[in-house]
Amino acid sequence: MNSAPTAGEVSPDDSRIARLLLRVEIDEFNARYASVLDRGDLMEWPSFFSDNPLYRITSRENFCAGHPIGLIYCDSKAMLEDRATSILKTMVYAPRLITHYITNTVVTTCERDVISAEANFLLIENQIDRSPSVLMAGSYFDQFVRHDGRLVLRDRQCVYDTVMVQTSLIFPV
Amino acid sequence: MNSAPTAGEVSPDDSRIARLLLRVEIDEFNARYASVLDRGDLMEWPSFFSDNPLYRITSRENFCAGHPIGLIYCDSKAMLEDRATSILKTMVYAPRLITHYITNTVVTTCERDVISAEANFLLIENQIDRSPSVLMAGSYFDQFVRHDGRLVLRDRQCVYDTVMVQTSLIFPV
Amino acid sequence: MNSAPTAGEVSPDDSRIARLLLRVEIDEFNARYASVLDRGDLMEWPSFFSDNPLYRITSRENFCAGHPIGLIYCDSKAMLEDRATSILKTMVYAPRLITHYITNTVVTTCERDVISAEANFLLIENQIDRSPSVLMAGSYFDQFVRHDGRLVLRDRQCVYDTVMVQTSLIFPV
Repeated sequence: MNSAPTAGEVSPDDSRIARLLLRVEIDEFNARYASVLDRGDLMEWPSFFSDNPLYRITSRENFCAGHPIGLIYCDSKAMLEDRATSILKTMVYAPRLITHYITNTVVTTCERDVISAEANFLLIENQIDRSPSVLMAGSYFDQFVRHDGRLVLRDRQCVYDTVMVQTSLIFPV
Repeated sequence: MNSAPTAGEVSPDDSRIARLLLRVEIDEFNARYASVLDRGDLMEWPSFFSDNPLYRITSRENFCAGHPIGLIYCDSKAMLEDRATSILKTMVYAPRLITHYITNTVVTTCERDVISAEANFLLIENQIDRSPSVLMAGSYFDQFVRHDGRLVLRDRQCVYDTVMVQTSLIFPV
Repeated sequence: MNSAPTAGEVSPDDSRIARLLLRVEIDEFNARYASVLDRGDLMEWPSFFSDNPLYRITSRENFCAGHPIGLIYCDSKAMLEDRATSILKTMVYAPRLITHYITNTVVTTCERDVISAEANFLLIENQIDRSPSVLMAGSYFDQFVRHDGRLVLRDRQCVYDTVMVQTSLIFPV
């Protein structure tokens, strides 16, 4: 009596549905995260992290070789807050707007307490006196946990593919 | 007897699921919208709007300052249709293809009849005689309503971060 | 007694939910596909296809005119494997990293055994001696089937909008 399942049918597999919805939730997290950076609301940025987070921006080469160094390295929420404060206090740069595009989200593992995920980021730089251009291309390697049901980052490694990085980069990604 | 919920588990919270699915639906809407523009099917473009829509393309600076001006400003469906017709009738430009990338969707509020959402758009320009380049980076600020169950735009503000905009831009975004 | 449905409410329409979840699943497929290419794991690339796939990279102009030619044309899994092997064996190019961004997914039809879908791809090239730049913009036109529940590509047409394509392109997209 039952018709065979079709290619697009939702299987009664709840774990498949849970995985797909989790992917959407992480996408939305990343969109909110990027919006805070693009609007310059840097004091909101640490709120996306857990209490004892790791945050690093590093090159693909360093990341693959396992080197701990990075353009930015923070291993506590206080360091994230210091970073945000010092940027806001010392900003003396030519006006520019940066726009994030976050795509290609993959939930790699999801164990009892920790969700591992990846995504690609693209940063476009808009300057006053020239056409918009690609500032940085790369990937996030993330570990999420939940606080009161809400996703927060326990670890975010921002790994850039771009080889020629502007040394003036002091912003979070 | 019940195991504790894991980090990736779907909670029995239907409102969370509804919110995530709505985000996917808006993503899909934006993909269809962009496809119509990229393929040059401009006469289809007004069908993505409600009967009395607002549509505007403006700079981040004007948007944040609350200025009503814009590169394009339409406050009725007839104006959208006029815009589409006049572009198709008067096109005398060098051949080029534009490709939209729409990412970073966030559903900001969802009240009884109106869904407010944001997304980022990136426009890549492909010209015959040069490498592809970034034409425009920015964000949509949208209000959606439903007509017969289908999402349509009541208000779309296209806010570009790009400072140097080609004055030849007469296309919808 | 029942309140009227609101704009963001999940309707009890299971086919709507199935369609939205399928879109997320294809997004995730494309993210995993791109990751394999970006990391250079070319031997994994054929595993994303069905046993007798079509794979082609061609220009928008050729695609719209129905011309069968392409930069790359493979009509069997063996040809995909040959392509992967020969690239890995003969690579003598300046080091560069390519980053994929896949967005704007639309499920166009979903019939008994075959899911037709589209998406936009953006390829950013990161070279050692210059700023990152747009390598290629375009769209996938895909047909998916399921093998043991898992999505695989029966047909992927990579259609680039970019007119000036680097003739050195021998990589899959």
